[in-house]
Amino acid sequence: MVDVAVVGAGQTKYGNHASGLKGMWAEAAQRAFASIDGDFDPSRIDEAFIGSLAFGGSQLGNTAALLTEHSAMDGIPVRRVENACASSGFALRDAWMAIKSGQADVVVAGGIEKMNDLTPERRRYWLGVSGDTEWERLAGLTFPGTYALMARRYFHEFDSSHDDLVHVSVKNHLHGSMNPLAHIQKAVDFEKAANGFMVADPLTLYDCCPTSDGASCVVLAADHVAKQFTDTPVWVKGSGAASDYLALHDRPSITQLKATQLASSRAYSMAGVAARDIDVAEVHDCFTIAEVLATEDLGFANRGEGGQFAREGRGVLNQGDVTVNSSGGLKSKGHPLGATGTGQVVEVFKQLRNQADGKRQVDDAETGLTHNVGGSGATCAVHVFGRERS
Amino acid sequence: MVDVAVVGAGQTKYGNHASGLKGMWAEAAQRAFASIDGDFDPSRIDEAFIGSLAFGGSQLGNTAALLTEHSAMDGIPVRRVENACASSGFALRDAWMAIKSGQADVVVAGGIEKMNDLTPERRRYWLGVSGDTEWERLAGLTFPGTYALMARRYFHEFDSSHDDLVHVSVKNHLHGSMNPLAHIQKAVDFEKAANGFMVADPLTLYDCCPTSDGASCVVLAADHVAKQFTDTPVWVKGSGAASDYLALHDRPSITQLKATQLASSRAYSMAGVAARDIDVAEVHDCFTIAEVLATEDLGFANRGEGGQFAREGRGVLNQGDVTVNSSGGLKSKGHPLGATGTGQVVEVFKQLRNQADGKRQVDDAETGLTHNVGGSGATCAVHVFGRERS
Repeated sequence: MVDVAVVGAGQTKYGNHASGLKGMWAEAAQRAFASIDGDFDPSRIDEAFIGSLAFGGSQLGNTAALLTEHSAMDGIPVRRVENACASSGFALRDAWMAIKSGQADVVVAGGIEKMNDLTPERRRYWLGVSGDTEWERLAGLTFPGTYALMARRYFHEFDSSHDDLVHVSVKNHLHGSMNPLAHIQKAVDFEKAANGFMVADPLTLYDCCPTSDGASCVVLAADHVAKQFTDTPVWVKGSGAASDYLALHDRPSITQLKATQLASSRAYSMAGVAARDIDVAEVHDCFTIAEVLATEDLGFANRGEGGQFAREGRGVLNQGDVTVNSSGGLKSKGHPLGATGTGQVVEVFKQLRNQADGKRQVDDAETGLTHNVGGSGATCAVHVFGRERS
Repeated sequence: MVDVAVVGAGQTKYGNHASGLKGMWAEAAQRAFASIDGDFDPSRIDEAFIGSLAFGGSQLGNTAALLTEHSAMDGIPVRRVENACASSGFALRDAWMAIKSGQADVVVAGGIEKMNDLTPERRRYWLGVSGDTEWERLAGLTFPGTYALMARRYFHEFDSSHDDLVHVSVKNHLHGSMNPLAHIQKAVDFEKAANGFMVADPLTLYDCCPTSDGASCVVLAADHVAKQFTDTPVWVKGSGAASDYLALHDRPSITQLKATQLASSRAYSMAGVAARDIDVAEVHDCFTIAEVLATEDLGFANRGEGGQFAREGRGVLNQGDVTVNSSGGLKSKGHPLGATGTGQVVEVFKQLRNQADGKRQVDDAETGLTHNVGGSGATCAVHVFGRERS
């Protein structure tokens, strides 16, 4: 079976963009191509998968083709992949399978979202419809409210309090302050992050990711052509994905995400690694509590000890076994829904090639992980990457 | 490399449905499972791909997971695949690649669209955004208008007139009258179809497909497990897909679809067949002119002779070399956008197993084709099927 490598990866800065969908996508693709050794010829691309929840720029259908048309990928099979905030995590999986299937040698996986030209009212609509509609949204539950419920229950079940979430926020802002592509490049101290204005009790402003525009693009290649593009490929060693009930009330527990547990165990197993082998992990922290739960579901901390993991700074850059969200994560780097999954790959690609700019390089990063969640956990894709092919 | 078979396929009747997304999807899945020999256990399904433009039932994001949750496909990786009206044609391709990749043995490809609980104004919005927005939609061009431009140009370039389109309409209504799952089960005569009220000159009511709700579901299996599910699998012998410029003005010609030409040549080549080998073809006739162009782009007629092909009744059930749209096609069977592509497979599956109900069985149908187009041709997926594995 063919092995698959990441040979190029790039993204726009996340934040408020004046440019629209086509401009953002072209920039991300251009940066991905520029990261490839020598002059990359886009006609080498056989197929493309682009993740987006709603694109957001008025063009809703067939937009994947519009984007490849505007980035010199003429005539190739291309489609949108959608799983809410996990859209491009699944685009990556599907691109990886396309190469594994023997049908394509060079495949693009990417993602994009334009959030900031939607009116605030429309924006709430797009976001809200990724959770359960029938039981949650129509009863008034928004995403901050959904994750606030998880946080309250977590504090009730385990030795944890909002202070643990503050530690996550401080860490991710610190990392983001060193990332020139982050939406928010500003460190905050504990005092400030602990006293943000309330959004959904107990979650404050500093517990919630910002509303970002952005695009990201990853170029994958089959083992037999990878060396044509770079001497330092990053290998996709494992891919795992799963789904779960949309509505919280259908789940046996709301302090763990079954989809994350399933997806990560599948990815670890395929890669032949364990959680302790991961040096750098880009984790889906749409809210700080999500990172606490993910550190447990991914196996970095024992069940119920995710709060303690945060409190002890075990995910801080080069301070523990694993650096969590060296990019700043969704909290600080930003969260342009569809772009987030492949944007995480951009960071891991840099880290494993020792190219992380802005002093946020993880020492001796050999094995990386990306964790991309849709909505409140109905879908999840986890990928494991390595500097070595096997 | 593993071969892939269709072992089950089912769909709802197309039309106006009282049931919502979950009900329609469960019905299509149930019918697909029922078409499998013996009792099918849905836990055998490893992965799923569901095509939809907009779902249409208020749940916009993560909806693929909501649907698999409600059809006993718990925990599996699932995602929405979107390419406007070609969404489930691409879902089929991606499901096929998932099996070819060795990552899955049993995969579901399906599609769904709920059109009729959108207000007329919203419905125009969903539909319109699948064409080019910047150059076409904002200038007032709708889909009937887009295809009307193609028709006018076709009549200008070649020996053809609106009468040829009437023949397509009469044929597809005749076929649809024999399909109990068709939205419109009513034959029309030439006189009536020639005198429909004008929609977009020269296209009348009888040149345009209806607005349908519906869902379709196809179960694919790897060669080494296919026999566990049926003694009469239908093999996917070739898959081809392509893209093209969204806006008509960017294309060298608007009387042919480059995406159809590319996709079909790739599918024929992989299957080792030529157009003349196809016995039954489900062709994307969102408007009658689209079928005329497709008969040329797919190679059933020479360039410029698609009108003559229709005029001579060469696609009528068992009258020529190939039966075109034995189901009634989009014109008569209906067009629930995301459901259409895998719905075409439902028909070919029945035809190749000699199980087409309602007297529309194509004699000695051994090789079939599905042709699914996104928007006005920006995306296209073509698949070739056969009774024999090789």
